[in-house]
Amino acid sequence: METLRIGVAGLGTVGAGAVRILAQNAEAIAARAGRSLTVVAVSARDRAKPRGCDVGNAAWFSDPVAMAASPDIDVVVEAMGGAEGAARDLVTASLKARKSVVTANKALLATHGAELALFAERANVSLMFEAAVAGGIPVIKTVREALAGNAVSRIAGILNGTCNFILTRMDAEKMDFDVALAEAQRLGYAEANPSADIDGFDTAHKLALLASLAFGGAPDLANVSIAGIRDLSALDLQMAARLGYKIKLLGVAERTDKGIVQRVSPCLVPQGSLLADVGGVLNAVHLLGDAVGPLTLIGRGAGAAATGSAIVGDLVDVARGIAPPPLGCKSEFLKVFQPVPPSARKARRYIRLPVRDRSGVLAELTAILRDEKLSVESILQQGHHEKGHGETLHVPVILMLHAASDEAVGRAMEKIARLEALGGRSCCLDVLVDERARTPGKHTRELYDAY
Amino acid sequence: METLRIGVAGLGTVGAGAVRILAQNAEAIAARAGRSLTVVAVSARDRAKPRGCDVGNAAWFSDPVAMAASPDIDVVVEAMGGAEGAARDLVTASLKARKSVVTANKALLATHGAELALFAERANVSLMFEAAVAGGIPVIKTVREALAGNAVSRIAGILNGTCNFILTRMDAEKMDFDVALAEAQRLGYAEANPSADIDGFDTAHKLALLASLAFGGAPDLANVSIAGIRDLSALDLQMAARLGYKIKLLGVAERTDKGIVQRVSPCLVPQGSLLADVGGVLNAVHLLGDAVGPLTLIGRGAGAAATGSAIVGDLVDVARGIAPPPLGCKSEFLKVFQPVPPSARKARRYIRLPVRDRSGVLAELTAILRDEKLSVESILQQGHHEKGHGETLHVPVILMLHAASDEAVGRAMEKIARLEALGGRSCCLDVLVDERARTPGKHTRELYDAY
Repeated sequence: METLRIGVAGLGTVGAGAVRILAQNAEAIAARAGRSLTVVAVSARDRAKPRGCDVGNAAWFSDPVAMAASPDIDVVVEAMGGAEGAARDLVTASLKARKSVVTANKALLATHGAELALFAERANVSLMFEAAVAGGIPVIKTVREALAGNAVSRIAGILNGTCNFILTRMDAEKMDFDVALAEAQRLGYAEANPSADIDGFDTAHKLALLASLAFGGAPDLANVSIAGIRDLSALDLQMAARLGYKIKLLGVAERTDKGIVQRVSPCLVPQGSLLADVGGVLNAVHLLGDAVGPLTLIGRGAGAAATGSAIVGDLVDVARGIAPPPLGCKSEFLKVFQPVPPSARKARRYIRLPVRDRSGVLAELTAILRDEKLSVESILQQGHHEKGHGETLHVPVILMLHAASDEAVGRAMEKIARLEALGGRSCCLDVLVDERARTPGKHTRELYDAY
Repeated sequence: METLRIGVAGLGTVGAGAVRILAQNAEAIAARAGRSLTVVAVSARDRAKPRGCDVGNAAWFSDPVAMAASPDIDVVVEAMGGAEGAARDLVTASLKARKSVVTANKALLATHGAELALFAERANVSLMFEAAVAGGIPVIKTVREALAGNAVSRIAGILNGTCNFILTRMDAEKMDFDVALAEAQRLGYAEANPSADIDGFDTAHKLALLASLAFGGAPDLANVSIAGIRDLSALDLQMAARLGYKIKLLGVAERTDKGIVQRVSPCLVPQGSLLADVGGVLNAVHLLGDAVGPLTLIGRGAGAAATGSAIVGDLVDVARGIAPPPLGCKSEFLKVFQPVPPSARKARRYIRLPVRDRSGVLAELTAILRDEKLSVESILQQGHHEKGHGETLHVPVILMLHAASDEAVGRAMEKIARLEALGGRSCCLDVLVDERARTPGKHTRELYDAY
């Protein structure tokens, strides 16, 4: 068969990573694909910039959209990023020109995935995006293809290596958030403007794509509730440890009879569980299917080589003529997700409240909880004093609540915020259940569990 | 598109499991596949036997090979098992009749995979076998498709749930092998004749398939070295624990400059590592690729639903026209593996020797080790006495050796076996290195590691 002619737009970490792998393993890749894969065109902002990859005699396009029109290209790799602008224009133009597209662009797909999938479908070409979620971990392929026989009920993932690195450092070294973030920036794990990572948006994009594939609907970013890790303190990680948990930024998508939950937030995860043990910049995805049961994938979620691995895997699929529907089923079958109302989503909670160190405070708090019918599992009052505003001392009170709805907890937190005794920002996190505790007599991780 | 017409041969656990999933999730499966998947024919030994699955109006074939010839069938599910006989005849006849085949038959593919892949290639149909390795874990798809850009250097897997259950019980309850095996049999995790599982043959079949896909050669079962778990004692698991390890039956395939290693054997795995923590009947596969880095997949390796999930995933691929080369590349590109000679494969070792409790024994042992240039990491002499033959007491001596070749260790073990002081069967196991120990300052499982 003839060479697969590739045009690469964007030669940053991801694009250059893919080009390097194509060169390095060219022979094996050609044997697997049944044809050679050749980069015949590239487009990037600055032609002169050194990139650590050799694009040989590839044609140079200063305008990526012009590359899409070239009759000499079969497939376009979009590695520029961004939900709008050049990336969107390039992918749209490529698909309309009947070229397959391989991309790492989670923002673009989470925002315009349904439209782009339709373009791909009409043109009868592939739109592949394994690299958009969890780097080198083949979670898109797993959900879209391997689990096609399953009704998936739950996906929970550590999908952002930057946040996981920061949380791992805060936990291991009792560091505060700012210190850990600065370290991550120094090591190149976090950007100068870290908001997309630490405020949860990057995880939200990835979660919207996983939920789309797993539950058969268009990506529904608008209904992802998003909280980041900025407000966590070293104390939260220490308290969690004392209670038997790690804190992880999770993306969780669930299918319930009340609708679809999509939620990005820091969660307490039981120590010793698979997700709790995933440290540093690693990513992990835990899936629950009605047939396959629990399935966990762990690997590198970012970096030139891991992300490049995913792009080249997609390119080999294109070369082999493997073209699954981009969102797992044809556009006409895609459902519109019904989000679960705040009255219906229930979870156990960890609440940290900085309160004035005076008598009567606990009585005020517990009265609010009682009025909202919230049941307390435990209360910890920490001896460690924090300086509040002025001269008053504040002590953190940690509440663990039994499962309760977002609505009831939200109302209680509002009332608590109005208490005169509250001396700063409070923190309220989901607590995941350790399913293993429900199955006494079962063995380590044999029946692991709902997250 | 028209219905995909499926013929199922074998309605045991696996076949009936697949049929149930096809019925249960029919609507979602049709939306994903773009067409309905219908079981139009079945074949099994006993027509009257209840199977807990409804095959509706499917045609009945007492001869599966006759089913392969039916013009009313597009794809055959082979769920009979066995490397020869009816299963081989059916798969051969189906492929020659230009029907795609989906199978769970690891023995058949490990033995005749290259021949069958060639038949599939000539007929331009699919030969899919996700269910043959690690049940519902999509490891075949991962290696064959997702990692197509990688040079994979290592695969290590817990591929047999029966053995993993037995070892988990021996470890947790200090049970002897026979007791744990009996429990596994009572629970339906082990067969009345457990040899295929506990002697490592089942793991060897699966490993040969993974090595074939990862390293681009025909399955090479003849060069898999195989040891099972029958000779392990509760003491071995206790000693391993004391030294900081768990014992797991692993299939390990490695590509080195000296050739390919394929090895099934109980190994000491560092406590706290991912594979060490996989308990009970779960399976796990750890891969190392030059681009993707380390990648671990954990899930259910057996059972009707998990295996059925893999079969239905393959059927949806067939329905979508997804047809990767069965062994990862075209037959003409498949290499013949060069096995690594015993002088070149090196590993750390755990050795347990039951020796007479008399002076001078250690001197005799250490002289042998010195002569073979084997370097001792530690020696443990256990107070716990075992009764040997007659009245003599035997004490187990545990040696931990630094990395040494199979050849040198084999010669030493032969000399030791001839020692008058040896009072029973000795035990020699590989010890896996904890890569994390080599990367001080790195965080939990961030950089995990070579197995």
